[in-house]
Amino acid sequence: MEISTMQTIETLGTVAFSISGSFAAMQRRLDPFGVLIIAFVTSIGGGTVRDLLIGDTPVAWMRDVNYCLLILLTSLATIFFKTHIKKFKVTLFLFDSAGLGLFTMLGIQKGIMFGLSPGICVALGTITGCFGGVIRDTFLNTIPLIFRKEIYATACILGGILYFTLKHFNIKEDVANISVIAFIFVFRIVVVKYKLTLPKFGY
Amino acid sequence: MEISTMQTIETLGTVAFSISGSFAAMQRRLDPFGVLIIAFVTSIGGGTVRDLLIGDTPVAWMRDVNYCLLILLTSLATIFFKTHIKKFKVTLFLFDSAGLGLFTMLGIQKGIMFGLSPGICVALGTITGCFGGVIRDTFLNTIPLIFRKEIYATACILGGILYFTLKHFNIKEDVANISVIAFIFVFRIVVVKYKLTLPKFGY
Amino acid sequence: MEISTMQTIETLGTVAFSISGSFAAMQRRLDPFGVLIIAFVTSIGGGTVRDLLIGDTPVAWMRDVNYCLLILLTSLATIFFKTHIKKFKVTLFLFDSAGLGLFTMLGIQKGIMFGLSPGICVALGTITGCFGGVIRDTFLNTIPLIFRKEIYATACILGGILYFTLKHFNIKEDVANISVIAFIFVFRIVVVKYKLTLPKFGY
Repeated sequence: MEISTMQTIETLGTVAFSISGSFAAMQRRLDPFGVLIIAFVTSIGGGTVRDLLIGDTPVAWMRDVNYCLLILLTSLATIFFKTHIKKFKVTLFLFDSAGLGLFTMLGIQKGIMFGLSPGICVALGTITGCFGGVIRDTFLNTIPLIFRKEIYATACILGGILYFTLKHFNIKEDVANISVIAFIFVFRIVVVKYKLTLPKFGY
Repeated sequence: MEISTMQTIETLGTVAFSISGSFAAMQRRLDPFGVLIIAFVTSIGGGTVRDLLIGDTPVAWMRDVNYCLLILLTSLATIFFKTHIKKFKVTLFLFDSAGLGLFTMLGIQKGIMFGLSPGICVALGTITGCFGGVIRDTFLNTIPLIFRKEIYATACILGGILYFTLKHFNIKEDVANISVIAFIFVFRIVVVKYKLTLPKFGY
Repeated sequence: MEISTMQTIETLGTVAFSISGSFAAMQRRLDPFGVLIIAFVTSIGGGTVRDLLIGDTPVAWMRDVNYCLLILLTSLATIFFKTHIKKFKVTLFLFDSAGLGLFTMLGIQKGIMFGLSPGICVALGTITGCFGGVIRDTFLNTIPLIFRKEIYATACILGGILYFTLKHFNIKEDVANISVIAFIFVFRIVVVKYKLTLPKFGY
């Protein structure tokens, strides 16, 4: 996979997470500033936690102001066109799932770059993909969605395991990357479409 | 602005945030230890998040035990004299606003010191000024105030923009610093006094 | 105290925190994945915050995948044998207190290793011992237990003061370590057994 392809999908993922964060904040009736902040933490939360844990500081978004501008513009657009975008919930969900796949893949790659073991790389990928949503929900004062309804992180973990399985069989890097992103993308859609969940505990 | 002046106002800001944190914790009926912890995170939260994001570790308060002592003493004093201090709500609010201004200015200066771009420096300043309150409210299990009622962070952002505008016109460093601190101080007081807010979303 | 002894108790502490986190998550009816995450953050939260604050990255659990495996297995075992383990609440509580003692001691040692002052070392020890629980409760959307009911952190702080007092009188390192761990262990049991609490504020 070429660098430019990665950047394109990362940009789409950032846009999607920014939209999802904006919606979550507006549903809680925050003011526009609060909406921007929530959009921001949803988009950069995962990568920031990842960079802090491995000590790659200043964290990514501080080194490239373009991501901040992208999030700002996306969030403002979501606020102004909110009625219109609501009709595209499916589009939003697809972008969000694509972002999840790519951010997970990026996190895994960064872990490998820092010489961490495969299990930790999968954890890093999962953190990169999911933690933006965890911080968003914590700030919005709800039990993070990730712990309740969706098999969100499970997709990241299985995707990570798939990646190292593919590498074990000497699959080409590009093919492995695309396969993992596609797997997480499809897995999440199937899970949400058929409302699959892990069993809950009844006390 | 001389170093000693900066330290004086920083000390006042730390004291003010410590008092505000103590009050917030006592209103939620925490025990004295909880009050101390909340006072502590309110005072050092912003600077800690800033130092973590730019990788300036060990974080500031770990390198100077005097800040911890100052927070401890302020918080204990607030607990013991709580009836008395309640009458000085205006004084507290003024100190809190001054602290907001200075901590924002310090965050911006630290960003410049680390060679970050102006937009990121403004973000760092805002984080330094506001994040103590965000962590406090998250621990106290409420939607952080910053996302709901006050145009708190807006003051920091506008102050940051003012700073780089002044520097663009070659205003002296000292004058720029004092202007920004004064602007944030006055802006916040005016906003709270006239109950100005950003528009909310009605769903 | 030999390294192997330290590792044995640290392992026991990790197991205990993992069990305690799993129970807290199951009581909130999270799905198994959520339970694993909460067990994980409870076990590694304190050490992670400590390593981030002093800048010792990648953080500890990223450098040794065995801790992750240990937490995973413990949490799975807790989920499957939950009815059985409930009867051993006392055992769980004892392990949890032992873990608290040891993690506090480890945090203090790491602070000394990084050349920090005694007061900051005590803070680091307290963070290492307590922060896993703080993060757990924040994610589970309750006011952290540490701020409400138990004199949890007080045990760590008094233990830390005890350590530096013993060192001041030139007590042997091993004896000091064991004394502090035992003190925190016993102090917490006594406090919980006799329901001792710091006074609350009545408004």
